[in-house]
Amino acid sequence: MSEEKKTVFEPTRRQVLATTGAMAAGVALSQLGGFVSKAGATGGKTEKWPWPYKKLDPAKTAEICYNEWYRVFCGAAVINSVVGQLREKVGEPYTSFPADAFVFLEGGQLGWGTICGSPAGANIVASLIIGPRTAGDPDAHHIGNDVMQWYSEAALPTFTPKELNPKAKKAGVPHKLQTTVSNSPLCHLSVGKWMKAANKSLKSPERKDRCARVAASTAYKVVELLNAWHDGDYESSGFVSCAKENGITGQFNCMECHGDDVPEAPQG
Amino acid sequence: MSEEKKTVFEPTRRQVLATTGAMAAGVALSQLGGFVSKAGATGGKTEKWPWPYKKLDPAKTAEICYNEWYRVFCGAAVINSVVGQLREKVGEPYTSFPADAFVFLEGGQLGWGTICGSPAGANIVASLIIGPRTAGDPDAHHIGNDVMQWYSEAALPTFTPKELNPKAKKAGVPHKLQTTVSNSPLCHLSVGKWMKAANKSLKSPERKDRCARVAASTAYKVVELLNAWHDGDYESSGFVSCAKENGITGQFNCMECHGDDVPEAPQG
Repeated sequence: MSEEKKTVFEPTRRQVLATTGAMAAGVALSQLGGFVSKAGATGGKTEKWPWPYKKLDPAKTAEICYNEWYRVFCGAAVINSVVGQLREKVGEPYTSFPADAFVFLEGGQLGWGTICGSPAGANIVASLIIGPRTAGDPDAHHIGNDVMQWYSEAALPTFTPKELNPKAKKAGVPHKLQTTVSNSPLCHLSVGKWMKAANKSLKSPERKDRCARVAASTAYKVVELLNAWHDGDYESSGFVSCAKENGITGQFNCMECHGDDVPEAPQG
Repeated sequence: MSEEKKTVFEPTRRQVLATTGAMAAGVALSQLGGFVSKAGATGGKTEKWPWPYKKLDPAKTAEICYNEWYRVFCGAAVINSVVGQLREKVGEPYTSFPADAFVFLEGGQLGWGTICGSPAGANIVASLIIGPRTAGDPDAHHIGNDVMQWYSEAALPTFTPKELNPKAKKAGVPHKLQTTVSNSPLCHLSVGKWMKAANKSLKSPERKDRCARVAASTAYKVVELLNAWHDGDYESSGFVSCAKENGITGQFNCMECHGDDVPEAPQG
């Protein structure tokens, strides 16, 4: 699972390994507005970080997530696969977190094809547990970046269920499914490239099971990183954002939409 | 605020007004997997909907959101502007909701330029209060679609602060700012088109204040819709998703990325 083949973004990606990941992210994030004081905090009682965390089994989490997809779809499945186990192992504040509210993450938020619900769900999980960068620890941001980078570069899904979900089995979904590299965390690109390679429709049971497996793959990945963070072994990949590289929030696959005519961001 | 000029998506948008909004969304959403039973629910104690809601003043909410942007940025500002007031007016379950965890929504999630944090935050607010469609009421989905459609078509920002935030004032941001239509809920397109029209960089104080105003505009919009929903006066626009129209999760601005070569979604 941790050995997925690395591909590269086209065409302007430069993977800069800064001296420390924290430094790199600090520089990158300052472009969006910089660190801010907590003076104006409105005071939710669960806004103290980190939340208590107990290590989870990535493979078990992925199996839970795969089956949860058939109940609440990608984003809420990733969140529930982690939060559900921590409700049992830890209790509050996980018990009070309304994970099922995040069904809307499906289809890149309500079917609009924006960010895939799986990395969006992973971002939520990391920030719930570690807290936002504005609370002092940038590791949730680093883990979120690492998950989105991994999601963009991996041949997904990396996860294959031990047993097919009953709905998939009944529909005749094969045990082995096509994998594709999205070069993007966007649902439209991730699902679209898979549909093209597999020649399957959005409504097909294979596409649905593929998305359940992508959610499970992502849950596996974020739990691996959270476990490392818990043990003090997490090291950021040193991801440097498009905002830092190109002066515009974005991904690194500029030509995929812009062709040869990639605009320069204004410097004014 | 409710009179913003309507523009149209290019090139394949068809705004289908179905007999009822609920029917339209039911059809559209079934393409993503359909309604599911709650049998597998993992049982968070705040997962009972709707949450108690008291009507908020959209203008006051927008002013709060505008200033919250300078603390926690777009997505968490939208969430805090609503949740913060409801903590005071209602209490639980809003007090236990960790709104500040959603700082990561900034810059289209960690600066990746995917969905703008403002509509993402509005989707969270609507689903927290009304609940996910899987809990029985599709209105959070309808409101989320309406906000994303409005966000794509409006000349943003629609909101101008009564008083500039001290940071903006100090930096010499003018009271009146450029407005632009994004034709998309993506941060990259929304911010990029504004930067081009205003000839301002990502780091400029004008761009930052523009994004604070876009968050405030979005908070205003979602509170208008939530107030109507609370009074039983909310009616869905009858939005029909790209998944239903084109068989792929997406937006309706296909040619903006694909040019003349818009692929057909597989039907297999």
